[in-house]
Amino acid sequence: MDSSSNGSQASESALRQPHPQVRAPESTLVGVDIGGTKIAAAAITPDGRVLGRAQVATTDCASYEAFVQALIALVDRVLEAAGMDSRTLAGIGLGCPGPLDPERGTVHDPYTLPLPDGADIVTPLRRRYGVPVVLELDTFAAALGEHWLGAGAGHEFVACVMIGTGIGCGLVRHGKVTRGARGAYPEIGHHVIDPSGPLCYCGARGCWEALASGTAIGRAGREAAASGRSSRLLELAGGRADTVTSEMVFRASREGDRAAHEIVARAAEATAIGVHNVIHFLAPDAIILGGGVMQHYDLFAPAIEQALAAITMVPRQGISVTRAQLGPDAGLVGAARCVALALQEGRASRS
Amino acid sequence: MDSSSNGSQASESALRQPHPQVRAPESTLVGVDIGGTKIAAAAITPDGRVLGRAQVATTDCASYEAFVQALIALVDRVLEAAGMDSRTLAGIGLGCPGPLDPERGTVHDPYTLPLPDGADIVTPLRRRYGVPVVLELDTFAAALGEHWLGAGAGHEFVACVMIGTGIGCGLVRHGKVTRGARGAYPEIGHHVIDPSGPLCYCGARGCWEALASGTAIGRAGREAAASGRSSRLLELAGGRADTVTSEMVFRASREGDRAAHEIVARAAEATAIGVHNVIHFLAPDAIILGGGVMQHYDLFAPAIEQALAAITMVPRQGISVTRAQLGPDAGLVGAARCVALALQEGRASRS
Repeated sequence: MDSSSNGSQASESALRQPHPQVRAPESTLVGVDIGGTKIAAAAITPDGRVLGRAQVATTDCASYEAFVQALIALVDRVLEAAGMDSRTLAGIGLGCPGPLDPERGTVHDPYTLPLPDGADIVTPLRRRYGVPVVLELDTFAAALGEHWLGAGAGHEFVACVMIGTGIGCGLVRHGKVTRGARGAYPEIGHHVIDPSGPLCYCGARGCWEALASGTAIGRAGREAAASGRSSRLLELAGGRADTVTSEMVFRASREGDRAAHEIVARAAEATAIGVHNVIHFLAPDAIILGGGVMQHYDLFAPAIEQALAAITMVPRQGISVTRAQLGPDAGLVGAARCVALALQEGRASRS
Repeated sequence: MDSSSNGSQASESALRQPHPQVRAPESTLVGVDIGGTKIAAAAITPDGRVLGRAQVATTDCASYEAFVQALIALVDRVLEAAGMDSRTLAGIGLGCPGPLDPERGTVHDPYTLPLPDGADIVTPLRRRYGVPVVLELDTFAAALGEHWLGAGAGHEFVACVMIGTGIGCGLVRHGKVTRGARGAYPEIGHHVIDPSGPLCYCGARGCWEALASGTAIGRAGREAAASGRSSRLLELAGGRADTVTSEMVFRASREGDRAAHEIVARAAEATAIGVHNVIHFLAPDAIILGGGVMQHYDLFAPAIEQALAAITMVPRQGISVTRAQLGPDAGLVGAARCVALALQEGRASRS
């Protein structure tokens, strides 16, 4: 089990780092960000300071029982790293890829996690720690985090688009997660942008994710390398076209490779339309763009700015479109915020 | 001034018609639906009965003063038709094309109305009748009407798409209009569906309105007639290709004309993607399709049903996608509902 603490992540974050002597207040929370590669956790004070971190590789949790045990071990390590015991723990928030049911605390047929359909990952933690535990969709937790301490602070209605392996979008309104009817999560990353675009696993052609995710960019890069349109991509991949990644496409594009440049330009164009559509569907006052692909925000910004300048039907004054500020911390900070809100509103149950 | 009462409209409506002897209760409302062609009004009881109707041609209101006088004359005629005097009038709701500011009661640079920028159409009515008067965007008023008494009744989150000359979409959540940040109205009809589509006046290519509105269908029909691709359309237009309307396209399509059929099929395909996108952006439990183009709902339904069946990312069980039920009455019933809600919530001011 990989249990190294994650110093590099902290340096990417805009969060305030605590003084080593700070003691955890009574109402300290633990936020957990469950991902397909790793599960990261941290202790978070009510005012957003990070007191301790730990993480584990998701592949080390091969069964439901191992997954739950790993979560408990992770929370124990966070408490220790923060100099807390479970008496100072007020609650635990879990951000997790979907589909999931936040009311029941269950995860349903996740594509990326080693969990069976309907796995309850909330109850075992409630029993172990005797505190409220809440589950939230990862992108919605990240949106809450960015609204609380990042690029969305002070905004009324935030759409936080995470562009990485896939594309997800969390919505926060008046400081709270906003979903659809009967609590259903919108899936903005799968709205159609170009019906002549590539087929997505979701069944649609040319949805945002199929056009601009890291997966889409990597696939286009592999095609360009295999077809001989980009010798530079083939070179970066050591001659093996099937190993081209989205990062190689970004690098080749920055170096002036024409095919890579066109791939990035198409993804940027799709993202500009995606932002246009977010504005026309929701009329938010902040759109935040995060996730791994947005490490290359500078390559996307010109197309997005051009799209914003062309908007005539929705008042675009005061719509802030910016890069996410919290990096990979958004999810765990937001997960902690979820349980803090549940405590404030009396929604959080210990049993 | 055209002041005929509108019997034909009533027969299109699913609303309960009153017994002639019914007296207006104390809290009767007047709903006004302001359009580019006509202004329709009716007295509406708190439980949704229509007691009297009147209408006027918008072209007869050529200045701000004439417009306000016409509104007052219209309300007077509705009160008379309903057997009311202004003492039984509880409030007036106005549904109006945008852009508008519902808080200030002002209309801003309307494309379709003979009003100057910033025209206040609320205050003169408040002064004249001494009752609360509220202003709402037409599509949002229609959505409230359909939620109150039509296809949206009992649903939590309703997206009511009106496809006519243009495409607008009103949103109602928990029985109330829902907008964007700082009260901005979303403009879902101008979200981009196909970036290779025709240019819209909004500045975007291939937005829903540019692909599937009556205007778009009529334009495509004129092109088909002018280019010789549809002799039937040219015939229906009496040999003048530039007079082809969307209604002629629907008729020719039903008669088997190939070019007309393709035009309708493209509009239906765009509308199916529009519905897909509404579901992925908002996850509502009801999508209502109304407006003049949706008189031909049967020609659109197969494409929409196919798109619904293909959805995998948002739970589609229990998402109702249906035709609007109130026809042209949705706007005036909804306008009355606006002021009823404002009265209930203590938001309505008489001054």
